[in-house]
Amino acid sequence: MEEIRLIEVKEEILADNDAAATRTREKLKRDKTFLLNLMSSPGAGKTSLITRAIKEIRNEFRMGVIEADIESMVDSEKVASLGIRAVQIKTGGFCHVDASMVQKGLDALESDTLDLVILENVGNLVCPAEFDTGAIRNAMILSVPEGDDKPLKYPLMFSVCDLVVVNKIDFLEVSDFDRKAFGNRVLSLNSGVRILDVSCKTGEGIPAWADWLREEIRQFAVG
Amino acid sequence: MEEIRLIEVKEEILADNDAAATRTREKLKRDKTFLLNLMSSPGAGKTSLITRAIKEIRNEFRMGVIEADIESMVDSEKVASLGIRAVQIKTGGFCHVDASMVQKGLDALESDTLDLVILENVGNLVCPAEFDTGAIRNAMILSVPEGDDKPLKYPLMFSVCDLVVVNKIDFLEVSDFDRKAFGNRVLSLNSGVRILDVSCKTGEGIPAWADWLREEIRQFAVG
Repeated sequence: MEEIRLIEVKEEILADNDAAATRTREKLKRDKTFLLNLMSSPGAGKTSLITRAIKEIRNEFRMGVIEADIESMVDSEKVASLGIRAVQIKTGGFCHVDASMVQKGLDALESDTLDLVILENVGNLVCPAEFDTGAIRNAMILSVPEGDDKPLKYPLMFSVCDLVVVNKIDFLEVSDFDRKAFGNRVLSLNSGVRILDVSCKTGEGIPAWADWLREEIRQFAVG
Repeated sequence: MEEIRLIEVKEEILADNDAAATRTREKLKRDKTFLLNLMSSPGAGKTSLITRAIKEIRNEFRMGVIEADIESMVDSEKVASLGIRAVQIKTGGFCHVDASMVQKGLDALESDTLDLVILENVGNLVCPAEFDTGAIRNAMILSVPEGDDKPLKYPLMFSVCDLVVVNKIDFLEVSDFDRKAFGNRVLSLNSGVRILDVSCKTGEGIPAWADWLREEIRQFAVG
């Protein structure tokens, strides 16, 4: 039998991506531009959470948004209609954005003139967790209707995040979502994570989301 | 409303891939190494068609095989057990191989010492058709149980191939597969394509498959 040579494509691609993400992060530090990578399943409320942030802190920070989507431009149009600089990355079927795509988005935004850029990643709890985007902080949204078992099914996503936003808490009363069990599952994967409860619909918890952003941006700018 | 800058990731990735594929093809021409890219759905018979080719023409040409698979090494082990040089590309979830991955496989095979390399692409009728691998010729297998309507559903795949192999023709009698309608659908997409009917199980049509390979390799070597 001939010896088989094995080539592990994914490991090489991830190594290349990690190097590109490190270059992006170094440039963001030089420019004092805070980049937040926001991830979730489709429909969990990424665009709503971003537009809530825009309304809360747009007078305090120069903001931009990178929207990543497989095909449509709906989300970037919502952001641009608020008068905020927006870039749309159409991934054309790819299930995540990688660091080089994000760097292109930052360049198109002229991010060195901005204090805060929020990246709305592709709606997916698997692949985006594997690809470092170069962001300063990673956040994810888990909406109540998705269920409290998601940390068990997507542990990597919960492990890489600095912030978990529980959205649609207005559904808690009519749902069997066990908020305490969910929190324990998240913390057992990632003891340093912050968990915030919000409803983008009612506005509950939105001031705490804005405060988290303010505090992270200010710490980043001085550090 | 702010103007939205649009970044089309897929077009840029495909343009980069096309450039890499062109470099691979130029090197193959200098080395006189014929690379065949073999595509199909999972289970259509790629590995069987390759092992049939090995048995028919291994004494005439120096051969190697690149096996691309999401996780397993089963196919490359089958090839290596016949004493043929094999490289396994594990894509780790990616749905196709691109030109740079194939070039790594060719390097690992030391393809400049070979007359023929067959690339078994990932089992998928969509993505592999979009990514030029750098191959000299593209072939696909459509097995009878998949149905005669596949050219309507996957037109790009049928359009990019030089050869369509209809495998498992031993099922024709017990199936409602309309071979004539299938042929017309393929030719209406791609009038220059060659269609061969085979059964890897019974061996019917295998000599014509071997003859197609012989003729293509010889024309390439003199041209």
